Amino acid sequence: METLFPAASTASTTSTAPDVGYVHGYSTREAARLGDQADVLAGLLHSGTRYPDGSRVLEIGCGVGAQTRHLVAHSPGARLVAVDRSAESLAIARARLAEHAPGAFVEWHRADVHALPFAEGEFDHVFVCFVLEHLADPAGALERLRRVLRPGGSLTVIEGDHGSVLFHPDSAPARAAIDCQARLQAAAGGDASLGRRLLPLLDAAGFTEARVRPCTVYADRTREDLRAGFTRDTFVAAIASVRAEALAAGLTTPDEWDLGIEELRRTAVGEGTFHYTFFKAVARRPER
Amino acid sequence: METLFPAASTASTTSTAPDVGYVHGYSTREAARLGDQADVLAGLLHSGTRYPDGSRVLEIGCGVGAQTRHLVAHSPGARLVAVDRSAESLAIARARLAEHAPGAFVEWHRADVHALPFAEGEFDHVFVCFVLEHLADPAGALERLRRVLRPGGSLTVIEGDHGSVLFHPDSAPARAAIDCQARLQAAAGGDASLGRRLLPLLDAAGFTEARVRPCTVYADRTREDLRAGFTRDTFVAAIASVRAEALAAGLTTPDEWDLGIEELRRTAVGEGTFHYTFFKAVARRPER
Repeated sequence: METLFPAASTASTTSTAPDVGYVHGYSTREAARLGDQADVLAGLLHSGTRYPDGSRVLEIGCGVGAQTRHLVAHSPGARLVAVDRSAESLAIARARLAEHAPGAFVEWHRADVHALPFAEGEFDHVFVCFVLEHLADPAGALERLRRVLRPGGSLTVIEGDHGSVLFHPDSAPARAAIDCQARLQAAAGGDASLGRRLLPLLDAAGFTEARVRPCTVYADRTREDLRAGFTRDTFVAAIASVRAEALAAGLTTPDEWDLGIEELRRTAVGEGTFHYTFFKAVARRPER
Repeated sequence: METLFPAASTASTTSTAPDVGYVHGYSTREAARLGDQADVLAGLLHSGTRYPDGSRVLEIGCGVGAQTRHLVAHSPGARLVAVDRSAESLAIARARLAEHAPGAFVEWHRADVHALPFAEGEFDHVFVCFVLEHLADPAGALERLRRVLRPGGSLTVIEGDHGSVLFHPDSAPARAAIDCQARLQAAAGGDASLGRRLLPLLDAAGFTEARVRPCTVYADRTREDLRAGFTRDTFVAAIASVRAEALAAGLTTPDEWDLGIEELRRTAVGEGTFHYTFFKAVARRPER
């Protein structure tokens, strides 16, 4: 069981530990975590993303539907097609959307970004969130997405960048734990620091009018919602979830790891502070 | 000759090389650089900072006046008092303000933050930009500033955090050069990563209603003004300016250093991208 399109930016499966038996997006607890993440960040990440009534919109890598419900909420008249490679994730996504937006019109497809079952120019808009960072060939994936867009159609892509992480109290063990996660993601072909490369990737994939803007999350005691929903339940939880893989890969020891996670958790309580930047890009398929 | 309050966030003098003969803010080229920095960032940093007509405002560490002109432009009716420890910086600041805002009303004082010539509660507002990061006791400085505020008066403070730096193409030598600058600043008693600690520092200094927000700069080929004005002429220039000190302190070699600066400069051309976050806080002196 594998997933090309996990719905979370901050955790990964790794080819060095294929039999861990835990894959992103399939456990109920994991689905709840991904839902929390999407909710607390929705205002930041979905700001400015509204699709006209009747427009045909493709969400690639919808995972368990963490972003799908916000797409539907912000563009209730759009005709959304949500795609993921994992049937299990799609089943969870469908169930969650039925719960949160019973009347929403969404087509669900199981497909790989490298073999999309869509015609050239079929979509007015494409939305991609926390997907490219997991792909070995993000520029190739973007090229494929460009082709299913109509000329002039738009692509919106959101990715994180672990290089933006900073926190108080600062902690070398905490930074080492984050680095373990990034190395596991790299070993699996991904790039936890992809956000900074969005513009050159879009250029290389043949898009035009590309614009990138930073979406910065800063959480301290005055924002308990962000501290709990993002720092603790999203970012730290995602790092903590790769413990077994990090140990199996020999990247850390149990004591080092546990200290790192403990010190990461301190950034979400008391005088702790936490900073992370997502990058959001919008670009177009050239008119011809 | 020394300055307690250099006007730039991203360069430092260091006690390990006291006879370098180059101190921030005194050369014409340096004053121009600091002016460029303030101009391109003014929209970001001064957003939301407007003081009522007649209010008495203290700018601590005005340096060569890089922020002073923006304070005057945004609050033309305020009575501004600008303070710096360096007579030379103050002279440049006065001349620049006379050129840019001939009718502006500003009192200039040469003073140290630890021995301010002002009465308890004398000011309605205090403004501090790129100052705390150079102080060995930033919480103590904030306590002194709290006392010259009237009860209910506001403090606005802006500081950078080098932990937020990320760029494309990524480069270990470039990151090492930045680290040299941060180590020199630390050796001189400062902290290039102070931004993340603003909220706990304000709490410790007895302020109330403190709020911190990130001000993120992201520059790529679609923002040539930011690339030139911030990435190249501010950030990279500031790192490059400590070459002699970094070499004298044995932190690097000429080849390593020059490669690092060359690769930093690549982030401001072609497909390069650059990201930096400033932190801006507003807090109040308690009513009693």
